[in-house]
Amino acid sequence: MSKTNPGNYFEDFQIGQEIRHATPRTITSGDVALYTGLYGPRFAVQSSDEFARAIGFRSAPVDDLLAFHMVFGKTVPDVSLNAVANLGYAGGVFGVPVYPGDTVTSVSTVTGLKENSNGKTGVVYVNSVGRNQRGEMVLDYNRWVMVRKRDEAAPAPQAVLPELPGVVAPEAFQIPVGLDMTSYETRLAGSPHRWDDYYVGEKIDHVDGMTLEESEHQIATRLYQNTAKVHFDQIAANDGRFGKRLIYGGHIISLARALSFNGLGNAFRIAAINAGTHANPAFAGNTVFAWSEVLGKFELPGRRDLGALRLRLVAVRDRQASDFPLRTGDGKYHPDVLLDFDYTVLMPR
Amino acid sequence: MSKTNPGNYFEDFQIGQEIRHATPRTITSGDVALYTGLYGPRFAVQSSDEFARAIGFRSAPVDDLLAFHMVFGKTVPDVSLNAVANLGYAGGVFGVPVYPGDTVTSVSTVTGLKENSNGKTGVVYVNSVGRNQRGEMVLDYNRWVMVRKRDEAAPAPQAVLPELPGVVAPEAFQIPVGLDMTSYETRLAGSPHRWDDYYVGEKIDHVDGMTLEESEHQIATRLYQNTAKVHFDQIAANDGRFGKRLIYGGHIISLARALSFNGLGNAFRIAAINAGTHANPAFAGNTVFAWSEVLGKFELPGRRDLGALRLRLVAVRDRQASDFPLRTGDGKYHPDVLLDFDYTVLMPR
Amino acid sequence: MSKTNPGNYFEDFQIGQEIRHATPRTITSGDVALYTGLYGPRFAVQSSDEFARAIGFRSAPVDDLLAFHMVFGKTVPDVSLNAVANLGYAGGVFGVPVYPGDTVTSVSTVTGLKENSNGKTGVVYVNSVGRNQRGEMVLDYNRWVMVRKRDEAAPAPQAVLPELPGVVAPEAFQIPVGLDMTSYETRLAGSPHRWDDYYVGEKIDHVDGMTLEESEHQIATRLYQNTAKVHFDQIAANDGRFGKRLIYGGHIISLARALSFNGLGNAFRIAAINAGTHANPAFAGNTVFAWSEVLGKFELPGRRDLGALRLRLVAVRDRQASDFPLRTGDGKYHPDVLLDFDYTVLMPR
Repeated sequence: MSKTNPGNYFEDFQIGQEIRHATPRTITSGDVALYTGLYGPRFAVQSSDEFARAIGFRSAPVDDLLAFHMVFGKTVPDVSLNAVANLGYAGGVFGVPVYPGDTVTSVSTVTGLKENSNGKTGVVYVNSVGRNQRGEMVLDYNRWVMVRKRDEAAPAPQAVLPELPGVVAPEAFQIPVGLDMTSYETRLAGSPHRWDDYYVGEKIDHVDGMTLEESEHQIATRLYQNTAKVHFDQIAANDGRFGKRLIYGGHIISLARALSFNGLGNAFRIAAINAGTHANPAFAGNTVFAWSEVLGKFELPGRRDLGALRLRLVAVRDRQASDFPLRTGDGKYHPDVLLDFDYTVLMPR
Repeated sequence: MSKTNPGNYFEDFQIGQEIRHATPRTITSGDVALYTGLYGPRFAVQSSDEFARAIGFRSAPVDDLLAFHMVFGKTVPDVSLNAVANLGYAGGVFGVPVYPGDTVTSVSTVTGLKENSNGKTGVVYVNSVGRNQRGEMVLDYNRWVMVRKRDEAAPAPQAVLPELPGVVAPEAFQIPVGLDMTSYETRLAGSPHRWDDYYVGEKIDHVDGMTLEESEHQIATRLYQNTAKVHFDQIAANDGRFGKRLIYGGHIISLARALSFNGLGNAFRIAAINAGTHANPAFAGNTVFAWSEVLGKFELPGRRDLGALRLRLVAVRDRQASDFPLRTGDGKYHPDVLLDFDYTVLMPR
Repeated sequence: MSKTNPGNYFEDFQIGQEIRHATPRTITSGDVALYTGLYGPRFAVQSSDEFARAIGFRSAPVDDLLAFHMVFGKTVPDVSLNAVANLGYAGGVFGVPVYPGDTVTSVSTVTGLKENSNGKTGVVYVNSVGRNQRGEMVLDYNRWVMVRKRDEAAPAPQAVLPELPGVVAPEAFQIPVGLDMTSYETRLAGSPHRWDDYYVGEKIDHVDGMTLEESEHQIATRLYQNTAKVHFDQIAANDGRFGKRLIYGGHIISLARALSFNGLGNAFRIAAINAGTHANPAFAGNTVFAWSEVLGKFELPGRRDLGALRLRLVAVRDRQASDFPLRTGDGKYHPDVLLDFDYTVLMPR
């Protein structure tokens, strides 16, 4: 019997199946430093223990997307090693903050299965939950991927599609316990704009661009212990559709989020991931720009100090984002668009 | 109103104006590891908690230039986002050592303004002070930059030039409290040469060369949360003067300082930055070599165990430094010279 | 007198000579994060404090090869700065685990000398021992290198060859005190295969490939404070045999070891390094694949929970390892083989 991991194929998944993923991971200040070096985020809460404590965190929590990548990375060897495409995200809720020293593990449950009409692939829906060493939820999200069948002759399972929310409702947000915006200093945070200053429909060009390098995305993706081989193996890539190593989609999310500081400097905490699409693949040499649109504003029950903004974050490549490119006339994503990410942040009022 | 930071233009600065910079930053052992990986410094004090404790530090302090870059990085969004050139440094004094876990913030005061005769730009002088979470000074330095005017028709302010020292006097040095060289082991430090072994006028070729890579300087510059876009955006660079991403000048200072270990292995602490010029821009693909000259020797009041050396550190590119290149016959910097840095170090006697 | 380190030449070494190497090094969680980002290891013991504690470690120890590189790196300025080739390793034993916060120093003793018949070079054998801040041995190994003579006319020393073991015997293993496999969870570790599942002669193709980048090996090699200039200086490389920067051999060992997780996921601790050969030089742009062969199985005295596997780990470049390439018909290493590494791991039974 081969001792290497072949990954799961479409017919290996069953509705209700629970997968405890390997490699529990203690997240450290070393991971945080590397994350900062790779993307350059400047949110004060994640940058400063002092700033974080002043508003009720125990110390600086790690970037929410670093936690996301760590939880996600663990699911790859079991869920998407034989995936053709990462189709979408929904219903992602961030739980307790992750602090350096916390150890995260991931468990996924298969919530949906649908074979494609070509008989070669199928769509697998999983709900993945990351927990810290005390068993507290740090992230609970859904994603669906198109996975190859091992044997095209295998019978199709009964199609089951999970009910997934189009947007995470404010009632589902997990506001960190003890959070209090009284001592939040916008000057130190780097932006004077509070929740009340944003309006639905507002679009923000984040102005700055960053050029992608092979070693950067490889270091990032290995840091997350994400093993998808398309990111690392140029020999395989030579025979592939693009001839290049493909950049992990999450790398683009993190880069776009870091760029979005310029315009959203007080969006200090991601509360939810509503949806997300990797519209086009990204490669080393691409220069990434980003823009955002305010899709919604939520007051939070019982809080006058804090509100939530639902945002669309769009990453584009090799051109400025000042004209807010998204889709072409036929409704398809513009070829320059890399990412269309729908998420919700907390912001002081 | 746009929510992105446009940066300050020349006419936005006023004499005496105080700017509290954003993004307080907790510096961690993760930042230190990344710094080591990016430049390869081998100074024992910064490498070993044990060595550092033996001579009176609480534990290994972070590299003085890492502290410098962190303090400097914060000033960029307010001071030099619209800068044309970083013209110089003077009167830089390092204060209390920075240890992993310390949180650093920066405040700048405008000390000089002088519009250029072309009416398009002006020179802004700032004094910037970095402090730790206890308010203790970790770095106090001056720099001046050439900044664009927003509106060329804006009236010129009265010219004010600050008085800046040509060299930081030993009386101004902040010797870390408790420092005692009795247990300083030169064998462990990697060099037998103590303060008494160096003479004024001595030149040292640091021999080794290091080739610059795009991802290295990008990771470094993001780690420092330095947002100057010339370092990151190849699309903008394509339309620029060089066609390439420009490497942050501080990256060259750190690389040259790390190379200077080979010849100055006991120069364990930077006491002062006297002056500094980025003579030519550096790009990925350049190979950096360095040489030093002893410009002065200072005894320190009341100390027989410790002396100070004033050094010129010169970085050159794509050629060895064995002939100590600096200026050409016409007094201009040699085209191979990247950096001319005048600083003062502490060294055991 | 020049203040830079010329390194030792063949005639500078004497049998019995002890060299205390410079730059004691505190290893931190920052080094661990960078190591993870550079190679992507997924062994649970090194990834998770919780997992490590469950089987008797104090917390997650650092990767054994990270400890190896740190101990090795210190020896370079004294032992191999003038080396022509790194010829081999033998009798390497790992001692107490290294934890973040430990400070490591290295001492080498010259155990063998043999001038080559060309009169230009000689082989130097050293035994190098790394110790933590309590003086406990963390690694004890032998290597031999071919070193240039400074003066070809210098007389040849009497040839002395040390007795080196062909394989480290199980009696010499240092099993970490308190280790207990009762709570070792293979599901969390990512592989169901325990010691009993492997057989002598078994070959495992580790499947995945990783492409090498200049900045990655440079960052790694600087992190280890390894100063061998062939890894960093493209200007010198332009005049060299390959025209390229040469990748530190240890970088390939770490990469191959990380790839070997896929098939050897429970090989959680390296007990010994029996031998090792860098069969061919590696360069940026190469894609590395790896395969392993089980060379031996050792029961451990008094332990039913733990066994040892002697493994051959082979790294190849720019081709898959599924046909297990090693040597060509004439007994020489296949030109695609980069590394032939013989080591012994501990694995739960």
